[in-house]
Amino acid sequence: MQKIAVLGAGYMGSAITFPLTDNGAKVNLWGTRLDDKLIESSKKGVHPKLKKPLNPGVSCFYSVDLKQAIKDTDTIFIGVASEGFVDIFELLIDNIEPDRDYMFLKLTKGLVEYGGRIMRASEAAKLIYYKKFPEREKSQDASHIFRITSIGGPVRALELANRTLSASVYGIQDGQIKKLLKRFSTDYYRIFPVNDYTGVEICSTFKNIYSIAAGICDGLFKKNLSGLYYNAVSFLFNQAVLEIKYIVKITGGNPKTAFSLAGMGDLHVTSVAGRNRRYGELVGSGVEPGAAFKQMFDEGEYGEGYIALKLALPWLSNFGVEIAVELPLLNLLCNVVLRGFDPDAELKAFALNFGI
Amino acid sequence: MQKIAVLGAGYMGSAITFPLTDNGAKVNLWGTRLDDKLIESSKKGVHPKLKKPLNPGVSCFYSVDLKQAIKDTDTIFIGVASEGFVDIFELLIDNIEPDRDYMFLKLTKGLVEYGGRIMRASEAAKLIYYKKFPEREKSQDASHIFRITSIGGPVRALELANRTLSASVYGIQDGQIKKLLKRFSTDYYRIFPVNDYTGVEICSTFKNIYSIAAGICDGLFKKNLSGLYYNAVSFLFNQAVLEIKYIVKITGGNPKTAFSLAGMGDLHVTSVAGRNRRYGELVGSGVEPGAAFKQMFDEGEYGEGYIALKLALPWLSNFGVEIAVELPLLNLLCNVVLRGFDPDAELKAFALNFGI
Repeated sequence: MQKIAVLGAGYMGSAITFPLTDNGAKVNLWGTRLDDKLIESSKKGVHPKLKKPLNPGVSCFYSVDLKQAIKDTDTIFIGVASEGFVDIFELLIDNIEPDRDYMFLKLTKGLVEYGGRIMRASEAAKLIYYKKFPEREKSQDASHIFRITSIGGPVRALELANRTLSASVYGIQDGQIKKLLKRFSTDYYRIFPVNDYTGVEICSTFKNIYSIAAGICDGLFKKNLSGLYYNAVSFLFNQAVLEIKYIVKITGGNPKTAFSLAGMGDLHVTSVAGRNRRYGELVGSGVEPGAAFKQMFDEGEYGEGYIALKLALPWLSNFGVEIAVELPLLNLLCNVVLRGFDPDAELKAFALNFGI
Repeated sequence: MQKIAVLGAGYMGSAITFPLTDNGAKVNLWGTRLDDKLIESSKKGVHPKLKKPLNPGVSCFYSVDLKQAIKDTDTIFIGVASEGFVDIFELLIDNIEPDRDYMFLKLTKGLVEYGGRIMRASEAAKLIYYKKFPEREKSQDASHIFRITSIGGPVRALELANRTLSASVYGIQDGQIKKLLKRFSTDYYRIFPVNDYTGVEICSTFKNIYSIAAGICDGLFKKNLSGLYYNAVSFLFNQAVLEIKYIVKITGGNPKTAFSLAGMGDLHVTSVAGRNRRYGELVGSGVEPGAAFKQMFDEGEYGEGYIALKLALPWLSNFGVEIAVELPLLNLLCNVVLRGFDPDAELKAFALNFGI
């Protein structure tokens, strides 16, 4: 029986243990320092976020027990929040067994800061890996190559944990990994491989950002227009997908990936029901953007799109993107979320001017 | 002051009168025989579907007064249901002034039957026009050319009539028409021209069909999963857009149009809030597909996607499409809606098998 480690015991890390164990694997679920209470409760019987017990095949590990959690496995899912990704990945690489051939699967979505630069999380992971094992960077030994898979797609954790039909995209580096994916899939968890781990990662980052736009519409209109403002939501949704496609193209992914489950599909679910939509709703209804993030954080919810948006600006400027000209909807989000401009006025200005 | 005629006094025909008159035009709104009650009520003060009075710039005409309704105008919007399109268009062409240079703008969505064949509504319109004026088909006189624009995009009539921000795509035949479009747009109704009236028309037809899929999920899951089934909805949404792109490509449009407001954008709003979603919900919850259509019809609602799906099968087979192989989600819809197969079993079979 194979053993799989999952790092991060929040929503997604815990939810992925369901298809993995339903599929016959033993899973070690490790929590970060911030997750110790989740681990404690899960050990006693119920995961507090998923509001149900984990499968019997799951063993839970506290933050101090990382080495034990990854013992005897070469398959490691990473589902920590993007802000913790670099620290956790460094810790992980310090604790892996040097002679094993690892496959890392990244559930984390978002950009990270590493060595003073903003980059995709998988880029940071690669740098961290080869910093630890510099001799492997030019090694001919296939087992020494750094291998990471980016996971994307419209998969809300609560639904996955509920075994409701979900489909995911695994952005892989080469075709070899494809056959491994059936070890993770079940009759309720479909996996589609796509040879574009960069594109999947970029889509996952930006769908969190753009779903704030749907939330802003909710915040602006829900109270007075009771359901009669979906034309605007769909207009913004459409524009968001096209802007994600543009970003993927400029930043090194395959633009087609924006129209896959990682982009269009995930933006769809996140705009209807995600935490970033909720964050946008707070902002749209007049809560100051920083205060909205803090309000959610205090309730145990993490508006990741807000953090991602802050990092996206300098990151995109590295690629020479002029946001105000090339990405009008992202520009609206910057104006509203980072510069505190009035959402209603910004939405009107966007709708009337762009593309003319 | 320009004068515009709008044929069809249902949701969309009546709603489009708001931006047109807000923009300064005089509008003659003509109702079909089925619309006579709507016209009567609108004349008295309130449009029964929009639940509000029309603008003062709108004059209402009963079905017997077509000639009068189109007098002194060369701009005619057609917003009748697809089933009535051919008859109304024949009637229209019999009543136009031979020496005028008309522009027809088609709000009608769906395929039609004409002369024993199934075709796009604009194809039928063109045949009808040149049947009446055969000498014009090869005329060098620009004013004799048959000109039609296909309107698409995520525009729910109630929201447009409410002057809530909406964006529409006008699929045009040549760039010339572009400058006319600002005569129809307002600060709440943005128009984007696209040089692909064929693609816009195909998208509009198939978004009605594919939005049934979202409804089927609602019918299957809403009761027991209270909001925890959006992963599946987004999975189907994503697949629907990709299949629409495939269909547009095969049937002569520009595949990019599927990712415009006419395809992705309109499918988005229709899947959340449209009549075809509601039709799908009835079917997903166990109502026999024909009875579901009738139930809605008796309530004054028209599940156009059901009619469009029936016509889509023979139409697609004209292009050599093998639905079961090339369009797995459309195949699911055929199985459930036209063949009465169990929606739950079909959804599972689709999710597990396709793409493998």
